Amino acid sequence: MTTFDTLWAQLEPIGRHPQTGGYRRYAFDAAELECREWFVATATDRGLDVETDRNTNLWAWWVPAGVDPAAPALVIGSHLDSVPDGGAFDGPLGVVSAFAALDAIREHGVRPDRPVALVAFADEEGARFGIACAGSRLMTGRLAPEKARSLLGRDGRTMAEAMTAQGFDPSALGPDPERIARIGEFVELHIEQGRHLVDQSAAVGVAESIWPHGRYRLTFTGVADHAGTTRMQDRHDPMLAYAHAAIAADGAARDSGSRATFGRIEVEPNGTNAIPSTVRAWLDARAADQSTLDALVDRVARSAADGALVSGTQVEVSTESTTPLLTFDIALRDRIAAAVRASGTTGGSHVPVLPTAAGHDAGILANAGVRTAMLFVRNPTGVSHSPAETAEPDDCNLGVGALAAVVTDLLR
Amino acid sequence: MTTFDTLWAQLEPIGRHPQTGGYRRYAFDAAELECREWFVATATDRGLDVETDRNTNLWAWWVPAGVDPAAPALVIGSHLDSVPDGGAFDGPLGVVSAFAALDAIREHGVRPDRPVALVAFADEEGARFGIACAGSRLMTGRLAPEKARSLLGRDGRTMAEAMTAQGFDPSALGPDPERIARIGEFVELHIEQGRHLVDQSAAVGVAESIWPHGRYRLTFTGVADHAGTTRMQDRHDPMLAYAHAAIAADGAARDSGSRATFGRIEVEPNGTNAIPSTVRAWLDARAADQSTLDALVDRVARSAADGALVSGTQVEVSTESTTPLLTFDIALRDRIAAAVRASGTTGGSHVPVLPTAAGHDAGILANAGVRTAMLFVRNPTGVSHSPAETAEPDDCNLGVGALAAVVTDLLR
Repeated sequence: MTTFDTLWAQLEPIGRHPQTGGYRRYAFDAAELECREWFVATATDRGLDVETDRNTNLWAWWVPAGVDPAAPALVIGSHLDSVPDGGAFDGPLGVVSAFAALDAIREHGVRPDRPVALVAFADEEGARFGIACAGSRLMTGRLAPEKARSLLGRDGRTMAEAMTAQGFDPSALGPDPERIARIGEFVELHIEQGRHLVDQSAAVGVAESIWPHGRYRLTFTGVADHAGTTRMQDRHDPMLAYAHAAIAADGAARDSGSRATFGRIEVEPNGTNAIPSTVRAWLDARAADQSTLDALVDRVARSAADGALVSGTQVEVSTESTTPLLTFDIALRDRIAAAVRASGTTGGSHVPVLPTAAGHDAGILANAGVRTAMLFVRNPTGVSHSPAETAEPDDCNLGVGALAAVVTDLLR
Repeated sequence: MTTFDTLWAQLEPIGRHPQTGGYRRYAFDAAELECREWFVATATDRGLDVETDRNTNLWAWWVPAGVDPAAPALVIGSHLDSVPDGGAFDGPLGVVSAFAALDAIREHGVRPDRPVALVAFADEEGARFGIACAGSRLMTGRLAPEKARSLLGRDGRTMAEAMTAQGFDPSALGPDPERIARIGEFVELHIEQGRHLVDQSAAVGVAESIWPHGRYRLTFTGVADHAGTTRMQDRHDPMLAYAHAAIAADGAARDSGSRATFGRIEVEPNGTNAIPSTVRAWLDARAADQSTLDALVDRVARSAADGALVSGTQVEVSTESTTPLLTFDIALRDRIAAAVRASGTTGGSHVPVLPTAAGHDAGILANAGVRTAMLFVRNPTGVSHSPAETAEPDDCNLGVGALAAVVTDLLR
C-alpha cells in the first residue's frame, strides 16, 4: 500500500451513507468534524503544526528549523466537505494527495527554505448554508462575516448557531489579509469533473481557467389552498411558474452552450392535497464568459416572471453568490505543467491544459491576488457530485507523484 | 361562551406552528397524540365510553341504560389530523361540533333508544404516510394492513414503526366488519372547502356527492452529476420531465374542468450544484366522473413519459390511492336537509345541496355500504388546507345547532 492508499482508506468510510453510497459531509456536522479530526491526527503524526484559522479553515505547517516563518509559503490542499450524496474524491483527493506528496518529498530529502502548508478549506460545497467556498470567501473578504453568520442551514439553524454548537467562534469570522499575504503559491489538486483527460489519454492535467458562475435563489409565492376543491381558475399555484423557469433554464443553457441547473427545491407546505404557498428553487448557472452568463440568468428570470404573471403568483430572484471568470496565472501554470512533464511521474509526456466550469477555493484565492494553480486527475466517467464519481487508484498515485514533482520544483 | 367555543379554545393551540400559523398534526406524532388526549378527556368528562379501535380510530359511546348496545348506532364526528400547515377547521370542526351537539341534545332531554357514538378517524389527511383516510380505509378493507404497515412516512419511518413508538399495535390493523355493521348512520359535519354556501348566503348545506379522485406518485429517475461541469447534452436530469408533467397537468385539468395538483415533491440529492438523481412528485387528481379522471391521469402520465424520453430519464407512475364517485344516500340527505330547515337553527330556510371534490371518511364509509351524510358549514373565503382557512364563530354555532337537530330527528 502506498501512503496515499493508507490515508485514503482511513478517510473513506467517514460520512458515507449506507443506502446511497454517497457522502454527506456538511460544514460543522458530525461527519465533517470527523474529517477534521482525521486531518489533525494525520498532520500531527507528521510533526506539522496544526491550526484552525478564524474562518475554520484547517492549516498544517511545515517550517523546518532555520526557515523564516514569514517567507512566502507554498500551500497545497483542497477541502473535505461534500455535496449531498457526493462522491469520495471531490475535495478529499486533494487533501490526501497533499499529505502523500509531503511524505514523498521528505523521503527524497527535499528541505524547503520557506514554509510549506497543507490546507483544508471549510465548507467548499456550500451544501448546508448555500454559499460555495464559504471558508475561502470569508478569508478573502468576498463573503461578509455578518452575512455568513446569519445564513440559514437546511436544518433551520444559522451558521452562527451551527458553529457555536461545535465549539467554533462565529464572532471571529472575517477577512484575514495577513494570512493571505503569507501564501506564496497555492496549488490545489482535484479530480477532473469532466472527461477532457479521458479523451486525451492523460492521467494528469493543469487548469487554464474557471468559468464565471453563480447561484441564484428564486422564491415563487402563491396561496396555499385545497388541491381538490379549488378550481383551476381560482388558483395561485407557484409550482407552475417554477416549472416554466426550469424548462426555460434548460433551453437557454443549451442555446448558449452554457450550464443551468435547478438541483435544489423546497416546497411549502409540501402536502399532496395542498396547493403550495411557496416554492423555493436554486439556480446554478455557468458560462464561458460573463456576458453570456448574465444573459442566461436574465432569460431564466424573465421566464420565471412570465410564468408568475400567468399563474397569478409572484417570483423574487436573489443572487446568493457569483464568481467572475478566472484565468489562472499563466507563468505558474506553464511552470507546473513543465515540472509534471519533466518528472515523468504521470506515465506520459502530454499534460493537457483544461478549462473548467466548476468553482474551487483556488479560484477564490486567485481572484484575491494569490498566485494559484490547479492539477486535475483523470475521472474515467467524468461524473462528479454523485456516488458514481470515481478515479483509478493508479491515477491517484500518479497525481501524488505529479504534485510531489510540482512542490519539489517550486521549492527549488 | 357556548360549549362549542369552550371546546374549540382547548383544541386550537395544539400543533399550531408559531411561524406559519398553520397546523401540523400528523398521524402518531406528538401534536396528534395531544389531540387524541383531548378527545379522551372531553368524552370522559361526559361519561362516554372511549375506545381506540384496531385501526387507531377513536370512538366515544353513549349507550344509556336499557338501550341495546347491538342496535344500529348513530355515529357523528370527523377527524383531528391536518395537512402540513393546514387550517384549524378541516376535521376538528366536525369533532368539536359533535361534542357540542351531544351536549345540546342532552340538555334538551333527548333520550336515545339506540347507541350514539362520536368518532375521530385516524390519519384522514394522509399527510405523513401518503394515503388519505387511512383509518377508515383500513376499517372498511380498502387499504390492506400489510401495505399500511410498510408505508414510509416523510421522516423515513414506516407506519408500523411510528405506531409502535407510540404504543399502538400495528399487527392489529385490518378490516373491522363487526364495527361497520354496528353503524346505523354516519353524519360528518365539515367546513366547506369552496364558496358554494357563501354564494348562496347559507350558513349550512348538505353533501350531494364526492368527485372520484386519486393520488399518484410519479418517480422520475436520472443520473446525479455536477451542475457545472456536465454539458447539457450529456445530462439525464429528471427535473425536466417533472416540469413538463407539472405544466401538462395544469393544462389537462383546465381543459376538462377537473383538478390536478403537484403539491408535494422530493428531490435527491437536492443540492444546488448537483443534477438530481431522483425527483418524486405526487399528483392529486379529481374530476366530476371516472372517465374524465382516467383521461386526465393518463394525459399527465403520457406527458411525463414524453418528458422523460426527451431528457434521457425514466418515469414510473404508481397509484397510491383512488376513490370512486360517491353519491350520498338520497333519502338520508333529504331527511337531514328537512330536519335542518325545520329546526330553524341555521337562521335561513334554504339548505343547499352541494357536490364536493374533497375526499372524506364519510365517502369511504358510504362506499362500504354505510348510510352516510355530510353537513357543510360556510367558509367565507373558500380557502382550506391553509392557515387562512376560517369560519365565523356564529356559523360554527349554527352548524352545531343543525347537527343537534339532525341527531334529534334521526333518534326520533
